[in-house]
Amino acid sequence: MPDDKPLRANRRQFLKGVGAIAAAGVVPPASAARTSSGQAASGAAMLDYAAPGIERPRFGIIGMGQRGKSLMPLLLAVPDAELAAICDTDPVALRESRLLLTVAGRGDTPVYTGHDHAYRELLERADVDAVIIATPWRWHAPMAIDAMRAGKHAFVEVPMATTIDELWQMVEVSETTQRHCMMMENVCYGRDEMMVLNMTRQGLFGELTHGEGAYIHDLRWQMHETTRKTGSWRTHYHTTMRGNIYPTHGLGPIAEYMGINRGDRFDYITSMSSPALGRAAYAEREFPPDHQRNRLRYIKGDMNNTLLKTANGRSILVQYDTTTARPYSRLNLVQGTGGAFAGYPNRIALDDPPAEIQTIYDEQYEQQKAAWEAGGRKGQRPTRQSFHRWDTDMAKWYARFDHPLWKAGRTAAVTAGGHGGMDFMMLRRIVECLSDGIALDQSVYDGAAWSSLFPLSHESVTNGSKPVDVPDFTRGAWRSA
Amino acid sequence: MPDDKPLRANRRQFLKGVGAIAAAGVVPPASAARTSSGQAASGAAMLDYAAPGIERPRFGIIGMGQRGKSLMPLLLAVPDAELAAICDTDPVALRESRLLLTVAGRGDTPVYTGHDHAYRELLERADVDAVIIATPWRWHAPMAIDAMRAGKHAFVEVPMATTIDELWQMVEVSETTQRHCMMMENVCYGRDEMMVLNMTRQGLFGELTHGEGAYIHDLRWQMHETTRKTGSWRTHYHTTMRGNIYPTHGLGPIAEYMGINRGDRFDYITSMSSPALGRAAYAEREFPPDHQRNRLRYIKGDMNNTLLKTANGRSILVQYDTTTARPYSRLNLVQGTGGAFAGYPNRIALDDPPAEIQTIYDEQYEQQKAAWEAGGRKGQRPTRQSFHRWDTDMAKWYARFDHPLWKAGRTAAVTAGGHGGMDFMMLRRIVECLSDGIALDQSVYDGAAWSSLFPLSHESVTNGSKPVDVPDFTRGAWRSA
Repeated sequence: MPDDKPLRANRRQFLKGVGAIAAAGVVPPASAARTSSGQAASGAAMLDYAAPGIERPRFGIIGMGQRGKSLMPLLLAVPDAELAAICDTDPVALRESRLLLTVAGRGDTPVYTGHDHAYRELLERADVDAVIIATPWRWHAPMAIDAMRAGKHAFVEVPMATTIDELWQMVEVSETTQRHCMMMENVCYGRDEMMVLNMTRQGLFGELTHGEGAYIHDLRWQMHETTRKTGSWRTHYHTTMRGNIYPTHGLGPIAEYMGINRGDRFDYITSMSSPALGRAAYAEREFPPDHQRNRLRYIKGDMNNTLLKTANGRSILVQYDTTTARPYSRLNLVQGTGGAFAGYPNRIALDDPPAEIQTIYDEQYEQQKAAWEAGGRKGQRPTRQSFHRWDTDMAKWYARFDHPLWKAGRTAAVTAGGHGGMDFMMLRRIVECLSDGIALDQSVYDGAAWSSLFPLSHESVTNGSKPVDVPDFTRGAWRSA
Repeated sequence: MPDDKPLRANRRQFLKGVGAIAAAGVVPPASAARTSSGQAASGAAMLDYAAPGIERPRFGIIGMGQRGKSLMPLLLAVPDAELAAICDTDPVALRESRLLLTVAGRGDTPVYTGHDHAYRELLERADVDAVIIATPWRWHAPMAIDAMRAGKHAFVEVPMATTIDELWQMVEVSETTQRHCMMMENVCYGRDEMMVLNMTRQGLFGELTHGEGAYIHDLRWQMHETTRKTGSWRTHYHTTMRGNIYPTHGLGPIAEYMGINRGDRFDYITSMSSPALGRAAYAEREFPPDHQRNRLRYIKGDMNNTLLKTANGRSILVQYDTTTARPYSRLNLVQGTGGAFAGYPNRIALDDPPAEIQTIYDEQYEQQKAAWEAGGRKGQRPTRQSFHRWDTDMAKWYARFDHPLWKAGRTAAVTAGGHGGMDFMMLRRIVECLSDGIALDQSVYDGAAWSSLFPLSHESVTNGSKPVDVPDFTRGAWRSA
């Protein structure tokens, strides 16, 4: 397939080639959702909602911190997207943003600032169709709700919100205003995640039984950020919450593999945290005794484990640890009756690999055996590749199973950058879906379900790992999706 | 240290060199347990129990199936141990055992057989000091209890038993008879596990917060065993139990790292299983429609996740999956405020590596940087080893942190074989502890606590992941251990 054509063209090719799975682009459609029953129709109006097409969507970005500043140049690089305005209250962030805009020849971009609700002035602009919200977490819900009420589509950083009340409000406002509210879970647009999604849809792992996602990322250094940047506000969640405060990067892709809200849904969770020791130990080592970081009481356990049960009985493990000296991992494991994929490093084991890959295994075996025999049969005798060892060489799997949308857009994505291309791929998909007037890959119900682990894991941990029900934000429509 | 001297000599060296941690050999002592209070003294009499020394312990082996037949030649190879008699009811197993004994020049070894309680005749022999019990799980408790009542020490395969009642009975009979009842958790004697134990005691990972153990081992093929061998009886547990039916290989080493029953204890668990799909799918693929394997109703979820909370607040994840096409893993992960070790493959990340290992990192970096510069600075710039990537080269860690007992015994262990030497190492430790009249590395309380996940995980899964308390088999004595 030729590289880097517009995704929409390739999406149409994809529709013809692979059938139903492509109907919603990256993830399969919930096409029956709004027609299954009156309840479903009103209760999950946004499940496969397609807004009227906008030929050249115009965006405002609210929050020009580290995340907003990294998304902005990517958005400028997306074909057929416009940047209409930006907003932030931090003078340093705005100075850096203006510099970036000037370099990009967009120094005339309107800027909103001066007070906490300056973003509402941006929302009054008629030339803004949608906003990207990349502010501290407590601002996600009020800003998205204000945006939708002002007639704008809302694209919100992760987690979408931090309380169940907020999540329900976002769902309800999205439904009543018929505006999109999509959580920008960029990891769903990673090459590996899209390939595994493609493989699950082609049945390579059989019936899915279990998945694992995580956010294991040593971010103790962010505690040095005390007046601005992420650490200045995120550190405090370690003093008020006890569960998983960043569940969606790990969980989002697993939920897509399993078709959550599209034939299955989250039923309940149970959650357990380790002791909270690492942040205090780090503060003691890094800061003077009377430093503010040494006066905080850290209660969020260094490692959180949350187990999630789906309505169809599947299990998902979600881990969170930003405090231990461990290399980065999102786990990204999915398994079923036919085999398993796991990440960090990527590896695959299948009962029955596709014939062309079995052929590669067979050839490798013959070569290794010949070399072993020529070498006097020294060392371990080669064995034919089987599911009893992982295959870690991904090249042949990418060649066969790369998601069509990734294949179509990879050059532009990788060139643009942003977490290996996933950020650009996500923004491009958002723009094309808005432009073509088709359903987004993820609905407000997905963002709500994935984010709900934030408050629910806290509740379970606080109550001795008591199981806690996950709200069905689709109000039953997941069944017929 | 010279290789392969008797362990007891090296144990004494070890005592002198490293101090308190060595007092109980592999694991630290619970020396205060029996003196802390009257309750503790009576309630945990076996916590650090040392039976009178037996110069040349004589063993009976009950159960000459696959496990018994693999342990027997190892036992014959252990210095100062005697094989007094064997017992089984299966004619094929006995025929194979007799052949092995004849080859070993021990064709005159008495054999007990003929009925389910023939083992009781073996227990009547005055020349048997201890028995090894390697029978199907339902026989572990009655045989161990009968053995102790007959005055023999009992060494029991994993799991020690399958119900809480049985486990309590084994604890109580061990206490009243003052006979050892040790579960033979061979994995605790693996080279890697012993090294990590040694590292935890030297504080390399700081204060421990979280651990992970597993038994991930595709054993679907055992379903072909229908009339004898493991699959003939173990398959049926997949039709009656819903949780983790083989918890101890993964959990035992983690419990040792964390000092469970020696300053900490298991508090409660919560457990979740995936759907049970893989065994039925395998049966459908492998057997005719009317085959007995196609008439079973499999209810044990393919993957089980159990979360375990300790009294000191630590968390442990224990996984069980013998049904999915996944390569073997016991996870073997432990982490703390100073870093982490993980297995499969072995890897280490530390905030502050020992100076000599940091020196190796520094030298590697200088070499790689020089090569990179000489090569025109092509490809990725080398970076200094830090905890942001795993170190998977174990040689330098073995050199520095191999457990002294492993160093002392490794040649004999590796030569003798048995899961990479761990089986021989375990038997040799058992024999030397009995011979020297010192406490065993693991007490009856350890075997009971580790095995308790078998029934408790079933209970939690059956009740929607409800948290379930773990009995304190030490009745409080863990506090003062």
